Formats: sequence, C-alpha cells, structure tokens
Amino acid sequence: MSDNSRVKVIPLGGLEQIGMNMTAFEYNDSIVVVDCGLSFPDDEMLGIDCVIPDITFLRENKEKIKGFVITHGHEDHIGALPYVLQEINVPVYGTKLTIGIIEGKLAEHELLDVVKRKVMKFGQSIHLGDFRIEFIRTNHSIADAAALAIHTPLGIIVHTGDFKVDYTPVFGDAINLTRFSELGKKGVLALMCDSTNVLRPGFTPSERTVGSTFDSIFASHTKSRIIIATFASNVDRVQQIINTACKYNRKVIVEGRSMVNIISVAREMEYLNIPDNTLISIEEMKNYTDEQLVLITTGSQGESMAALSRMAASLHRKVTINPGDTIVFSSTPIPGNEKAVSKVINELYMKGAEVIMHETHVSGHACQEEIKLIYSLVKPKYAIPVHGEYRHLKAQGELAVSMGIPKENVFLMESGDVLGIGKEDAKIVGKVPAGSVLVDGLGVGDVGNIVLRDRQNLAENGIIIVVLTLEKYTNQVLAGPDIVTRGFVYVREAENLIDDARDVVSNALDDCLKNGGADWGKIKMVVKDSLGEYLWKKMRRSPMILPIIMEVD
Amino acid sequence: MSDNSRVKVIPLGGLEQIGMNMTAFEYNDSIVVVDCGLSFPDDEMLGIDCVIPDITFLRENKEKIKGFVITHGHEDHIGALPYVLQEINVPVYGTKLTIGIIEGKLAEHELLDVVKRKVMKFGQSIHLGDFRIEFIRTNHSIADAAALAIHTPLGIIVHTGDFKVDYTPVFGDAINLTRFSELGKKGVLALMCDSTNVLRPGFTPSERTVGSTFDSIFASHTKSRIIIATFASNVDRVQQIINTACKYNRKVIVEGRSMVNIISVAREMEYLNIPDNTLISIEEMKNYTDEQLVLITTGSQGESMAALSRMAASLHRKVTINPGDTIVFSSTPIPGNEKAVSKVINELYMKGAEVIMHETHVSGHACQEEIKLIYSLVKPKYAIPVHGEYRHLKAQGELAVSMGIPKENVFLMESGDVLGIGKEDAKIVGKVPAGSVLVDGLGVGDVGNIVLRDRQNLAENGIIIVVLTLEKYTNQVLAGPDIVTRGFVYVREAENLIDDARDVVSNALDDCLKNGGADWGKIKMVVKDSLGEYLWKKMRRSPMILPIIMEVD
Repeated sequence: MSDNSRVKVIPLGGLEQIGMNMTAFEYNDSIVVVDCGLSFPDDEMLGIDCVIPDITFLRENKEKIKGFVITHGHEDHIGALPYVLQEINVPVYGTKLTIGIIEGKLAEHELLDVVKRKVMKFGQSIHLGDFRIEFIRTNHSIADAAALAIHTPLGIIVHTGDFKVDYTPVFGDAINLTRFSELGKKGVLALMCDSTNVLRPGFTPSERTVGSTFDSIFASHTKSRIIIATFASNVDRVQQIINTACKYNRKVIVEGRSMVNIISVAREMEYLNIPDNTLISIEEMKNYTDEQLVLITTGSQGESMAALSRMAASLHRKVTINPGDTIVFSSTPIPGNEKAVSKVINELYMKGAEVIMHETHVSGHACQEEIKLIYSLVKPKYAIPVHGEYRHLKAQGELAVSMGIPKENVFLMESGDVLGIGKEDAKIVGKVPAGSVLVDGLGVGDVGNIVLRDRQNLAENGIIIVVLTLEKYTNQVLAGPDIVTRGFVYVREAENLIDDARDVVSNALDDCLKNGGADWGKIKMVVKDSLGEYLWKKMRRSPMILPIIMEVD
Repeated sequence: MSDNSRVKVIPLGGLEQIGMNMTAFEYNDSIVVVDCGLSFPDDEMLGIDCVIPDITFLRENKEKIKGFVITHGHEDHIGALPYVLQEINVPVYGTKLTIGIIEGKLAEHELLDVVKRKVMKFGQSIHLGDFRIEFIRTNHSIADAAALAIHTPLGIIVHTGDFKVDYTPVFGDAINLTRFSELGKKGVLALMCDSTNVLRPGFTPSERTVGSTFDSIFASHTKSRIIIATFASNVDRVQQIINTACKYNRKVIVEGRSMVNIISVAREMEYLNIPDNTLISIEEMKNYTDEQLVLITTGSQGESMAALSRMAASLHRKVTINPGDTIVFSSTPIPGNEKAVSKVINELYMKGAEVIMHETHVSGHACQEEIKLIYSLVKPKYAIPVHGEYRHLKAQGELAVSMGIPKENVFLMESGDVLGIGKEDAKIVGKVPAGSVLVDGLGVGDVGNIVLRDRQNLAENGIIIVVLTLEKYTNQVLAGPDIVTRGFVYVREAENLIDDARDVVSNALDDCLKNGGADWGKIKMVVKDSLGEYLWKKMRRSPMILPIIMEVD
C-alpha cells in the first residue's frame, strides 16, 4: 500500500457509536494511531466485559506503526490500550494526566515495564515517521484533554478529540482558540470534529456553573449530610465539591474504588488541590455530625455494584442512608441507564432522603454553536465528523455544509473505510477489516455470534439436557434417559412435568431404536423433536434441548 | 375481616412502578376490583413474557368479589384479566371501547363464552354489593377513558384512572370537570390520582397539537412517501393521520399486527372514521407513487420484531426504505427503550431517509397544573397518589400538601397495604400478600427467583456439562468424562482448551475414585471444584458447571 500521493485516514472504531475511538493515519511507510478506546457491551452482548476494535489492519502493518497518540484519559479513548499493546508494542504519547491514568492501567495488566510512554505538553510536537503531531489544549469533562494538529506532507489534519469550549474552566486554561485560528489561517486540509452533542442547539455551560449550584445546595442544606455522586474521572467536578466543602466547613469522605483511585492519581499529579485536614476516612465519619460531612461517591449511573447503589439498597457496609440525608446526582443518565438510575432514586426516597439533580451537571461535549465556532476558525477543506452514531455524524455533516463546506467535501465514514486525501481531491480508496472484538474475562475474541446466540437462547428459555448410555454394539439403552434442567422450571414443583417429559422421550427412543440402524444423529434428532413438540404444546416454551449420548462396550 | 366501620383500600399493584395497576375496595362483604393490568418484564427477568399481580388476597376472598371495573383499555389496566378471570370469574365493567378491546383478549384466551361483560356509559352507575361505581369521562391517549366515583357507605372515593385534561379532544368530549366539581362540593373522602407526569410542570398539550404538526409535515414533504410510527392503541392519533392523509390526497396503508387489530376494532365500533377509498392494502402500494402514500405502522419504541424496525433493518418483506422517505416517530421512547429507538433511527438515516420526531407526540398523562386542577375541584379529605414509582407518588404527595391537604392525610401506600378509611380517621390497618407473578408461555408463576438466577448465570457465562457413566457396584468409570458446552466458547476454535479441561476432570476423578467410598455428591463436587478452578485461572470465567452421573449395572 506504499503510496505517497495521499494521506490515508482509517477509522477503526467510533463511527457507529459513541465509544471505541481509534483512527489510523497512514502516509508512505508511517502509521500513527490516534486513541485506542473500548466501548461497553450492548444489552444483547450477554456476559461480555468490554468491546475493543478489530485491529487486523494494525497487526498486518505492524512495522509501520510509530506510536499511539492519545487525546485524553477516558475509557472510550484509552481502554483498549492494554489489549492492543500486547500485540503492538509502540510508544504511547499523551498529556500528563492522560499518561498518569494510562500508567495505572498498564500497571494492572503488568505492562508498565515493557511499554514506552512520553508526556507531551500543550503546544509541543512530536515527530512520528512522516507525521508531526502537535498537542493543543481543549476543555472536556476530564483535565488535560487535547486536540491534535496532525502535520502531514500534504497538509494539516485537525482532530478535536472530545471537547467543549469552557472560557472559565476550573483547572488550567481555556481551550486554545488562538491556535485553532492560526492553523485555520495557515490552511487546514481536514477537520475531524466531535459529534456527541451536535443534536443540541446552543452552547454547553461552563463547568463552573455546577460550582454555583453546589454552593446554593450547601447554603440551603446546612443541617443535613450531603452525598454527591459523580463520574470518578471528572476531577474538576470533585475539585468543586471539595472547594464548596471547605467553604462550608465540612469534612470530605471519598467512597467507591474508581473514585479513590482517580483522586489519588490526580492529587499526586497536582490536578487536584485538597487542603490539609479536609479528607477523612470513612471510619472517622462517626466522629462527626451530619452537617459536618460530605461524601463523594461513585454510582451516579445506577451501576448495581457502585457505592451509592449499595447505600440505597442497604448493602453498603459502612454508610447507611438516613432520613434527612441530601443526595446530589452530579450527572445525567447515559442512554440505557435511565431505569437503573430511577431505581436508585426511588430507594433513596423510600429511606427518607432528599434527591437533587437539577442543574447539578454539565456536559463535557460541544453543542452546535461551539462546533460552528471551531469550523469557523479552522476553515477546513474537508470535514470528517467523528465520535458519534450515524445520526450524529449526519447532523454534523449538515452543519458543516451550512458553514460553507461543499457537500462533496463532507465524508460520513464507516469504520474500516480508507479515505485518501490527495493534493487534488479526497475519496474513499479502500476498505480494511474493522469491527468489534468481545472481551470476556481473559478471553479476547473467543466469544462470537454463535456463543452469544446460545447465551441469548439459554437466557430466555433455559436448557434441558437429556442423557442416555447405550451399549456400543446393540444400541441397547443401558441407563437413562435422564433429564436435567437449568433455568427452565422450578423442578421441585414440576416433578410431574419432568416425569411426563421422560416418558415422552423414552417412548420416542423405543420406537426409534427398535427399528434398528439408528445412528447418533438420528437418535439426537428424535430426542429433540419429541421433547420439543411436547413442551411447546404443553407450555408454549422452547428451551434449548441438548441430547448427550454415552457409549459403553 | 368483616368490618363495616371502615372502607378498605387495597392496592395490589401499580405503586412501585408504572404498570400492573390493580386496586381492591372492600366494605363489609363486598369487594370491587378496579383495573387488572400487567407490566412488562424488567431487564433481569430473562425470558419472561409479562408480569401480573399476585392475587392471593382475591383468591382467598373470592366469594366477596362483585366485579372488575376497568378505567380504560391499555395493557397496564386490562392485561392481567385473561389470567385472573380463569380463577375469579366475575363480571367485567367498562366503557364501550374498553370492553371491545377486552373482548378481543378474551376471545384469544377462549374466555369469551364464560365471562360476563357490561358496557357502561359515562354518567351511568352500577351497584356492586355495598358499592355504587359511577363512570366519569376523562381524556387519555386512548378513547373512552374513565375516572370512577366509588360511592361507599362512608363517602365517595374518586379514582382518576390514567388521565389528562384535553379541552379540544379529537374524539368525544372533554373531561367532565363539572362532575368532578359537583362531587367535590358534595364532599369527597379520598382522591386516588394518576402520578405518571407529576414531575413535569405545566399542562400537557392537547392531542390536536399533533394534528397541526402532521399538517405541516405533509405540507412540506409533498414529494416523499410518509411513514408514521405510533402506539397502536392511540386511535385518536391514527384518526389525525388519516384526516391529514385525506386532506393531502394520500392513500393509507396500515402495517403491524397490533395496529391492524386495533384499527379494525375501533372502526367497527365507530371510534375511527375512515372515508371510503382511503385505506389500501400493502399489496396495492405498488400501484401508487411515493407522494400518494402514507404508511401507519407499529415500531415506535424500536421493538425488534415490530414493522418499522424490520423495515429499517431490511427484514420487512413488503416495504423497503428508500432515500427520500420521510419517517415520523409519533411517540417518545418509554424509559428503557432509548437505545433500541436510536438504533432504528440510525438505520433509517443510513438508508437515506429523513427522520422527524419534533412535536410529533404529546403525553396522555396530566402534568402538575392538571393534577392541581383536579385537587382543587375534588377537594378530597385524603390523598392517595397512584400510578407511579415511589418518587412520583412522593411528588404528588408534596403537591397535595401544597394544595392544603394536611400532611397526615396523604398516604403513600405500598402494594399490599390495607388502608382503612373510617368516619373519624384513616390508617393502615393491615397487610395482604402482594407482589409480581411471572408469566412465561402458558406458565403462570412457575418461573421464580431460582430459575431466573440460573438464567442470569447461563446468560453471562454459559454452561459446561460433564457426563460420566459409572459401573454401579465398583464405581469404575465406564464412559466419559465427556464435556459439552453451550454459550461458553466457540468449541471449534477451543479444542485444546476442552481437551485440557477433560484431562483436569479425569485426573481429579481418578484421585477421588481410587480412594474408594466416593458417593455421587462427592464426585460432583470434585468435578465442579477442579474444573471451576482450572477455568478461572486460565480464563477468569465462571461458567455454570453441571456434572451428570449415569449408572450401569
């Protein structure tokens, strides 16, 4: 594929969904990969822990790959790294907090000693083969988020990463609009811009607006214990809770494993400023009265094992929700989590707590007016909307056209498409393998459609196993048929049904065997058909029927 | 429990969730049951078709029950009737369309000949034992919805059913506010009011506003085929689509089983007015051009088997989505369905269709100002919020207090609570069994927690079956151990793993059997432990392990 007439943009994920972001950029013999994220399993992916991109293309072009360049430290941008780096061990580049979070992950997977990392500063560039990658400061719901200017021999490609425009961020500076503007003036070949919030008109409010809400909540709830649930990675949010706690003389307890982890990383790296004597341990809580306490906790998405959910369900060993407690959800439910969040809210109300979720969260993604601002500064020749489902990409495409980009210069790509950008034109020049690889425990890719279909069937209908032992030469039944079920009916109350089912199978087997010459395939079919028909007639159910034949000499 | 000093209000469902509505009213030797609904299974209720209330209390008081009084024809108010009437065969009372829909259900379950029904008119009353039940017209997202005034020897209880205030309904009259007001003047003991939309401020717009939106969509899409997905039971919505189709000279095709059913019932009963030569069959579609057609279809909730979802996924045999088609979602996603709806929208966009979902739906439930209106007219002594999760009931309780009801007169009940309302006071006087009964195929209640836990485990981890045949007296292994898996790994690519697993089990068995005296319990434990440990170490997975032993003389 050596070809120096075009820069190739090859998204390997992130275009069919929000999550699993990964894009390869290829020119001549150089490949650079931007982000390496996972996505969370869909409802039908039963038992799956997480989903990572298919990296067949990277595997086949291993020797060209110069490094992974990471925009920020969220799971959908870094989560696949521990899996991918095991096969493709190249250096990882990112800003300070991003690399800090990645190092935590690498340590968990025992990769810290074998993978090179380099911390990049905003404004700094790194040469990777034929590319030069420049890090540009943006704002997002995690600190140290970067956009990338990918300088190629044919021009500049700007990749925003996940971003919003926050003129008054809690930590660090506002997005470097000046640099976007300079690049725009110089001439930008293509803009790859975050689509997550493109369906929302207007401007995403500053993170600081949540701080004001916290202030009013603390001011009007001086008598009650305050418990605030938010995303562990939103360090600025945590900072604002701590600031408000200090102002109102409350001690802070941090609860939930991921929250404790991130806060310790962020504090160590000085992204979080916690005055001495502010944090106390959960064991010290008993030495304080309710009005002296704030808990910061995980569980804002109703995740059943997270700290707040366990508190709400009276399953938390150290925190009991009491009447008068004030619970703040500093979050909105991610699509799919609405019912889980409602469940937790109902449980909290039933315990007499007050629940607050009004103006307690802002998004980390740019709305329409911010996206327009970036287009107007960057003035790209080509628009490649990224980070979204198809409807989001399409909406950004329309927005781009409304900003003066010719329709034929807007590319709504699918993962695996190879967009070749040349001096004269840009077009899809090929297709590489792309898709989802399912991770279940330590298994990467060993659960596929057949296994998932079986799991679905088992989940909905349960299983009936019919075992029998045959004499090898005569095909005489030596033992069985025995029937064992799981997930079908409560057997103790269905003994008659199971007895009848056994009779049905026995009779069908007798008929089948007495005619002689029945092979195992035939016998199994007879078991399945007779039992299947009986159960459907009797119960209108279709459990998975699994005949197992053993043979004895 | 004979006691004529108190009227007892006994909710058997509908207070922990939106759905499964059913309330018994008891006085002396009379019981009347209002509504008999089902709910749809939660995500964790794998394989369950629907959920109905536990009717132990009704079963034990069978001889007292005078009838079922139904407020309207939605599944969450009538869906449990076919199951409950098989045990408790008493007459069913409802308005015309409600009874029409119920009759369809009874026919499906072959109960039409054995169950008595009586059609009630608005304003009419029926004496049932010591109660007199009066039907009052309301508005809702299905025609013929009724509130009930339950006249008891101790006073009047008003039950709103599901309702909204629509001053300009599409079919029939507006809600009979005059009657609510008369009852309020006379004196109302208790108000049981719909809580579904109590978290929303303001007023729910009239159904007619959707008609205006349809008009603008038809006016601005004169060149394209229009496909509108909505709830089958929303006959007024269908009427408005038909009216708009006629105005713009389009033929109408109805697609989706439940849509076809309801439209035929509603048309027969004259709740739907379809001019001649408007409806055409799906086969006739080919005789018309796109701009001459409207399809009304099911699938507005992204249900995978519904007509629109099949069209979007190219699985519909008769309708192909083409670029230029205009698809209108006349609905909002019910909580839990957001992701399924997004999936369909993305698929439609990918086929080049336009998707419209702005101002194309209004709710059928009262918002805060409507609920306040009802409280201000009815002026009840006691408030019993119904139809909602706990947070909704609680919010209506607070609204009632803000309307002047003393806090101690507001009852936030749980299903199974018995509220005794007497001349002097009202209080919880007892508790009856209440809960959920799961329906799976023809089985009612035979799938419980143990079966569901097995289904969950099978769904997440799959199953490994280990079979072996033993010689009865010597415990010698005659055949096996054989290993069969489902939903665990794709076996063809994991032969080594399965071979190793068999060795692990064989070795463990040898150790166990050579020591002699091993009973089946011990053998099964050895299989489970050795295999479980091996798989966890090797793969970090815990499939269900099911040892099966056969015995041969």
